[in-house]
Amino acid sequence: MTDNYNVPTEFMFAVIDAAIKYPDRNDIAIIYSKKPCVAAGVFTKNVVKSPSVIYDMERINNIAYGVVVNSGNANTCTGKQGMDDSIAMSHCVKEGLNITDGEVFVCSTGVIGVPMPMERVIPAIKRCVVKIGQNSLMEAAEAIMTTDTFPKIKSKTIKIDGKTVTISGITKGSGMISPNMATTLSFIITDACVEKTALDNALRQSVEQSFNKITVDGDMSTNDCVLLLANGSSGNAVIKTDTPQYDVFKQALDEITMSLSYMIVKDGEGATKTICIELNGAATQNDAERLARKVADSMLVRTAVYGNDPNWGRIMCALGGAGVAFIPENVDIYISNVQIVANGIGTKNDEEASKALDVKEVVLRIDLRVGSCNAKVFTCDLTEGYIKINAHYTT
Amino acid sequence: MTDNYNVPTEFMFAVIDAAIKYPDRNDIAIIYSKKPCVAAGVFTKNVVKSPSVIYDMERINNIAYGVVVNSGNANTCTGKQGMDDSIAMSHCVKEGLNITDGEVFVCSTGVIGVPMPMERVIPAIKRCVVKIGQNSLMEAAEAIMTTDTFPKIKSKTIKIDGKTVTISGITKGSGMISPNMATTLSFIITDACVEKTALDNALRQSVEQSFNKITVDGDMSTNDCVLLLANGSSGNAVIKTDTPQYDVFKQALDEITMSLSYMIVKDGEGATKTICIELNGAATQNDAERLARKVADSMLVRTAVYGNDPNWGRIMCALGGAGVAFIPENVDIYISNVQIVANGIGTKNDEEASKALDVKEVVLRIDLRVGSCNAKVFTCDLTEGYIKINAHYTT
Repeated sequence: MTDNYNVPTEFMFAVIDAAIKYPDRNDIAIIYSKKPCVAAGVFTKNVVKSPSVIYDMERINNIAYGVVVNSGNANTCTGKQGMDDSIAMSHCVKEGLNITDGEVFVCSTGVIGVPMPMERVIPAIKRCVVKIGQNSLMEAAEAIMTTDTFPKIKSKTIKIDGKTVTISGITKGSGMISPNMATTLSFIITDACVEKTALDNALRQSVEQSFNKITVDGDMSTNDCVLLLANGSSGNAVIKTDTPQYDVFKQALDEITMSLSYMIVKDGEGATKTICIELNGAATQNDAERLARKVADSMLVRTAVYGNDPNWGRIMCALGGAGVAFIPENVDIYISNVQIVANGIGTKNDEEASKALDVKEVVLRIDLRVGSCNAKVFTCDLTEGYIKINAHYTT
Repeated sequence: MTDNYNVPTEFMFAVIDAAIKYPDRNDIAIIYSKKPCVAAGVFTKNVVKSPSVIYDMERINNIAYGVVVNSGNANTCTGKQGMDDSIAMSHCVKEGLNITDGEVFVCSTGVIGVPMPMERVIPAIKRCVVKIGQNSLMEAAEAIMTTDTFPKIKSKTIKIDGKTVTISGITKGSGMISPNMATTLSFIITDACVEKTALDNALRQSVEQSFNKITVDGDMSTNDCVLLLANGSSGNAVIKTDTPQYDVFKQALDEITMSLSYMIVKDGEGATKTICIELNGAATQNDAERLARKVADSMLVRTAVYGNDPNWGRIMCALGGAGVAFIPENVDIYISNVQIVANGIGTKNDEEASKALDVKEVVLRIDLRVGSCNAKVFTCDLTEGYIKINAHYTT
């Protein structure tokens, strides 16, 4: 996570301490592009949405210069005042930078239901605007953390039409994670030149295969939002859908979204290990994904993995409760390469299987042997740490 | 739970220690009626079913004399041998009692995927049959416990047509609880004389309003089964559906199923308190139930209740993620009688609300204020105890 990373050209950053929830930590970040950006966004499907999400959804087709984001307060369930505050945060950045022809998106993450302390937020944003260029993308990744234990950042540099193109992303976890169309906050920036439709397509497809395939606790956040900003400063010819250039760009984007998603799971609240549920051999893609997700959401499976307990009966039980028809007598299950179930019955490899669970990255591979559709969902183990973090969060 | 209880006439009990999972505890129980019974059953919808469930489902319309049940082993995912073992257990009781004209149901609960230790089970059942009448219904309730911390028993005596009728039930918890059409094992016996169709209707409706309204961890068991046996020995005229006698019987049955369900939640793995989610004012009954269940299943809500943390934002978040449309700005939320949300916004009663959470029976009342449909779902708080119990269950 602290590997070297590249940053797309013409993007700049600033962070500041506004003491929104805790003193002495940066809790506001600004991502700014000197050149105007084409933007794409994927947003939470939760019926209860932060006004910041609504603000961005209504403006996602505008030309944009960046985003202002705060941690420590979700600005959700805050009524009309909440929307006024989101607007004020964006406008404060626009005024400070004298932006008259484009948008600055606004995102918030943290506790729900507490009014934003605007008496501290607005002066802090004004100080932050002045600092633009003095901070790094890594510092922005740190500023958006809530219960995260490490900042989440990933970058990738590729060649398109002979031009050097960089894509970089940051994200945060680490509870209320069960995205549907989106995730917790994630910001991806690139100096590629991409047509709006192509950018929309690439982001939507990439999120579907990454952020939408992770779960920590089955609760979809009210503030989920992935923003992708492309400022075109690398000078490549504009990328359109269904071209070789699009494929190269999309592949690099997928690498970013997959890496960031995996970091969220790795840093899931209280987690000691990651779990990849590989569901193979389903009759339909929908079946594969529902079954994989049901196993990933099972508290009994996740606690067993925590305890290195090869209790495969819980996997069979979770599969059977997913509302999907299959033949139990066909099912094979593996923990990494150790087969623990053959034709729906235990293989008695418990000792070997327990050892296979005693690793940081557990793979549970399930083969239904009825069709050819496969799915992968990522989660983490469930430990006392999750309870401790969440029993006393607001107080 | 250890209150005095009555037992319907002509029913007898026996328990025995077969050392199925642990030594020195009774893990087999027989419930026997001297008179043949009309039977009704509701069974798990899990695709993966114990052969004992399949055995009973195929024979639920037979005249029955009772049930043999074991704890410590679910006899699930045990292949053809599993079905042979279920049949052998039932036949062993029938042979011992010389039953040629009726059924003895068989139920199992415990770890999944381990073959039944039939070399100990069959001799134990033979010894148990000889003991019939020497044990109590309470001892049967104790014999079917797995991770339960107390036996669960409830009885009710009523008058029908001037005759004394008793209904008594036992059940067990306390993990893998998210019934759909049924629950964990539950046995209800009565000396009422009830027509088969009326018995079926009464049980199905009663389970829907009780066992199907509780959740501990969102995993539906492979062995869920509620059996209701009526031997008619009280001498009342046969009860048919849509009669005043049916209503009296049904009301008493509801009292039994509700009490037993509540005991399961109270004894949920690791629980320190129960939580009743009251969802009022929904547009449809389906909306009300989906929303109530989504809140009850939320790990974030359940950990907050554990920590006396009035983090109502998590309730709003869970509601919004249920896939049901509603107006967030209409929502009122109460913890017992303390209003914490009015029109979708916090009332700042945090201190009072925290005190309202510091009780053994928490009520979270949510009013959507869009319609007139209501639902109640019961769950328990989520604590470190749940993790401890489940991280090392099989080993």
